[in-house]
Amino acid sequence: MSIDLNSDVGESFGQWTMGDDASIMKVVSSANVACGFHAGDPITARRTCTAAAESGVHVGAHVAYRDLAGFGRRFMDVDPVELTNEVIYQIGALQAIAAAAGTSVTYVKPHGALYNTIAHHREQAHAVVEAIRTVDDSLPILCLPASVIQAEAEKAGLRAVVEAFADRAYNADGTLVSRRLPGSVIHDPDVVAARVVRMATERTVKTIDGQVIDVDAESVCVHGDTAGAVAIATAVRAGLEQAGVPVTSFL
Amino acid sequence: MSIDLNSDVGESFGQWTMGDDASIMKVVSSANVACGFHAGDPITARRTCTAAAESGVHVGAHVAYRDLAGFGRRFMDVDPVELTNEVIYQIGALQAIAAAAGTSVTYVKPHGALYNTIAHHREQAHAVVEAIRTVDDSLPILCLPASVIQAEAEKAGLRAVVEAFADRAYNADGTLVSRRLPGSVIHDPDVVAARVVRMATERTVKTIDGQVIDVDAESVCVHGDTAGAVAIATAVRAGLEQAGVPVTSFL
Amino acid sequence: MSIDLNSDVGESFGQWTMGDDASIMKVVSSANVACGFHAGDPITARRTCTAAAESGVHVGAHVAYRDLAGFGRRFMDVDPVELTNEVIYQIGALQAIAAAAGTSVTYVKPHGALYNTIAHHREQAHAVVEAIRTVDDSLPILCLPASVIQAEAEKAGLRAVVEAFADRAYNADGTLVSRRLPGSVIHDPDVVAARVVRMATERTVKTIDGQVIDVDAESVCVHGDTAGAVAIATAVRAGLEQAGVPVTSFL
Amino acid sequence: MSIDLNSDVGESFGQWTMGDDASIMKVVSSANVACGFHAGDPITARRTCTAAAESGVHVGAHVAYRDLAGFGRRFMDVDPVELTNEVIYQIGALQAIAAAAGTSVTYVKPHGALYNTIAHHREQAHAVVEAIRTVDDSLPILCLPASVIQAEAEKAGLRAVVEAFADRAYNADGTLVSRRLPGSVIHDPDVVAARVVRMATERTVKTIDGQVIDVDAESVCVHGDTAGAVAIATAVRAGLEQAGVPVTSFL
Repeated sequence: MSIDLNSDVGESFGQWTMGDDASIMKVVSSANVACGFHAGDPITARRTCTAAAESGVHVGAHVAYRDLAGFGRRFMDVDPVELTNEVIYQIGALQAIAAAAGTSVTYVKPHGALYNTIAHHREQAHAVVEAIRTVDDSLPILCLPASVIQAEAEKAGLRAVVEAFADRAYNADGTLVSRRLPGSVIHDPDVVAARVVRMATERTVKTIDGQVIDVDAESVCVHGDTAGAVAIATAVRAGLEQAGVPVTSFL
Repeated sequence: MSIDLNSDVGESFGQWTMGDDASIMKVVSSANVACGFHAGDPITARRTCTAAAESGVHVGAHVAYRDLAGFGRRFMDVDPVELTNEVIYQIGALQAIAAAAGTSVTYVKPHGALYNTIAHHREQAHAVVEAIRTVDDSLPILCLPASVIQAEAEKAGLRAVVEAFADRAYNADGTLVSRRLPGSVIHDPDVVAARVVRMATERTVKTIDGQVIDVDAESVCVHGDTAGAVAIATAVRAGLEQAGVPVTSFL
Repeated sequence: MSIDLNSDVGESFGQWTMGDDASIMKVVSSANVACGFHAGDPITARRTCTAAAESGVHVGAHVAYRDLAGFGRRFMDVDPVELTNEVIYQIGALQAIAAAAGTSVTYVKPHGALYNTIAHHREQAHAVVEAIRTVDDSLPILCLPASVIQAEAEKAGLRAVVEAFADRAYNADGTLVSRRLPGSVIHDPDVVAARVVRMATERTVKTIDGQVIDVDAESVCVHGDTAGAVAIATAVRAGLEQAGVPVTSFL
Repeated sequence: MSIDLNSDVGESFGQWTMGDDASIMKVVSSANVACGFHAGDPITARRTCTAAAESGVHVGAHVAYRDLAGFGRRFMDVDPVELTNEVIYQIGALQAIAAAAGTSVTYVKPHGALYNTIAHHREQAHAVVEAIRTVDDSLPILCLPASVIQAEAEKAGLRAVVEAFADRAYNADGTLVSRRLPGSVIHDPDVVAARVVRMATERTVKTIDGQVIDVDAESVCVHGDTAGAVAIATAVRAGLEQAGVPVTSFL
């Protein structure tokens, strides 16, 4: 019984900083490092990989649409062949940076709008799978459960690692409650920590309407972009340790 | 007795095309492939690497300043640590793209203003050397003779491959005649071809003031960005073949 | 009886050139000048506006998504408030450049994916209308007939100028035949010229299935991005002149 | 007797924030608003201009090199004609945004490396002057005293507004003590406030070696990018008010 915690890091760019990466590195076992397309310049990526290496945290390529102005959060109708090569490019760039930092890229997590899009958009999902297969078919991909990308990845022989979300409410069918609805995001660190412990130990979560459903996630996503988020992530880590659940990579 | 011919390729970007890469691939033994910072999006890089692989042409990482608007032709006072990581990033990105195309990056050639700057700017030269050493210290770097980058590279144990320029006039001290002076660029394909044959066979060149000086270059740079340039490059290749000089990589 | 001809120009960027603007300036009465978001750096915009001024051609702001890598041809799910300000920014930038060239921006034509999107996407259409109203509500907007953007523009008191397409086949309902279908694009300069003369004189077009339908366009779009396109545009201009139809701005 | 206080604002970009603009707007009489080349997307510029309008603060175009990754802090060897048009483009873009926010651009302040470069680089200084003259020759430019840009601006009939720096130590010749030397930046809010009051009332400053020299500045630059900087700026404002010195624009 163990669980992986992952979080987005390395999302500064030039003079702009984002997130408290130093604190998050103490919490997670997997660091999703920005590759320069939505955030993360080369020197930021290097520092982030160095910090991950020092903390014994795995490095994932946090690949994204080419959209600095939109932080990769806007759907872009990118041609699949182009997307495949953009993902290859990003993974390769981070591989070299990670190697320079004495570590390596051990998984891929698509970011933002790309992450959400490939949960249902078969062509883009296939394009991402093609990229990973081409670079290294031993790299797992983090994804939503019951998603098109999970199916496409597994069909292609890639390992799809399903993740849950620490601070998000769930519907009875296992999907996330839309951010537009009240109660979709849980802000109490203790409540979130207890939910993650339950996910890790019982493999269940209580839904927004009070049911208990199975959660079959190998990783749980936490955030580090605000002070509140870091407090929650830290509480999650502490809760897991108190419950005797090791936080270790899914690898 | 043989000579390498190298040229810049893969410098299209999105809907914009540049150069007649198909023709140049038939001429050269080394292709300097743009890595996305001055030109070259991921799909262009992939197509270019595929064409190089099909033609048996070596792929070099044509690393540059981050300056699409200026095509990497403007000096930028980049911090050395940042430059090192930008070069690592670019090489890594192209390595992944090249691997996807069934080939690999076998050398590095800095582009444009970076190329010219590191001929004399020790900090930036050192930064580029650091990047190559970090990624793979078996990768040679193409450079100007008697340059700071040549010295820095060799001091660090890298192989520095000196190149000559097919269509440029030389001063008696072995430097290039400034482009601002008349006669600095030679436009007659036959004259250029004859000069390159002489460089390859006698290891000499006639200077702008009629002297004969030694040219100790392992590679000669040709251009493919205009129809005239392609005609010259093609004449150079034909001239070398007629003279019985094999065109082969310096590797 | 007269007709406006418009075309996209100023779409070079840095060292990359696109289109034969010099030839197209002799053909059109309205020049859609790129504003830097999909193409067109400031110096290109300046040169293009200067050429338009010298040719007595009106300058339109060819506003686009922020997407140089995709040339503005990919749908982006941009927040409407952001889109409004991006369009204001682009128009303002071109206004200053046009003034420096001794002319002014007299209309707006959205580009590429933005043009197509606002034909049906009400929020983005509204965002573009808001931008134009804010900058100068006397600026007309070029658009597809029977489109959401036409309706939104007119509802807001803007003038919507409907355009037809010189080289595109029409369905019986007045929509364009999809580019994926055979016969969607007409390549014969004489045929295209005759169709435009008919549009200008009879206000009709023959559809792909042989019917004659009304075309109520104040402007006809021609292209200049390929040699063939320029030949067609030149034939259109010649055909109109032979038919005694003045080519003049819709203003 | 009055003094202008100016500060850089609107330097967020997309999801990245920078500076405490809300606090700084209460301190300054002139807001240098980023124009999108080193920082500042259109929606950020709009919000910033709106805030300036609400606070009765003048809006200046904070024009810069095209260098988001370097925040405009790196010298770029830009062609003067290109630079002129880049500056025209930026001013025009901000003019439209400012107008949308109910205000207008009333001066220009070059940013970062461009600011420092045109203090001595005649070609780039001339290029900036050309841009301002072309857009609106009634726009003053903020600059270092005894600089090339001041001379070029005045020669061309532009008003050059000399500024002093609140928190920087001065040499006996009126230049700033290099940031590399100890004591170059003053961190004590009370000391800084007292210095600015002296600049405003006596038109003098005490140099790093204890002399008193004349300071003939119409504006004083304060910073808002860190909490400490905002505290200093706030102290400067309070100090001036206590000394009965009105903080008003130089216009």
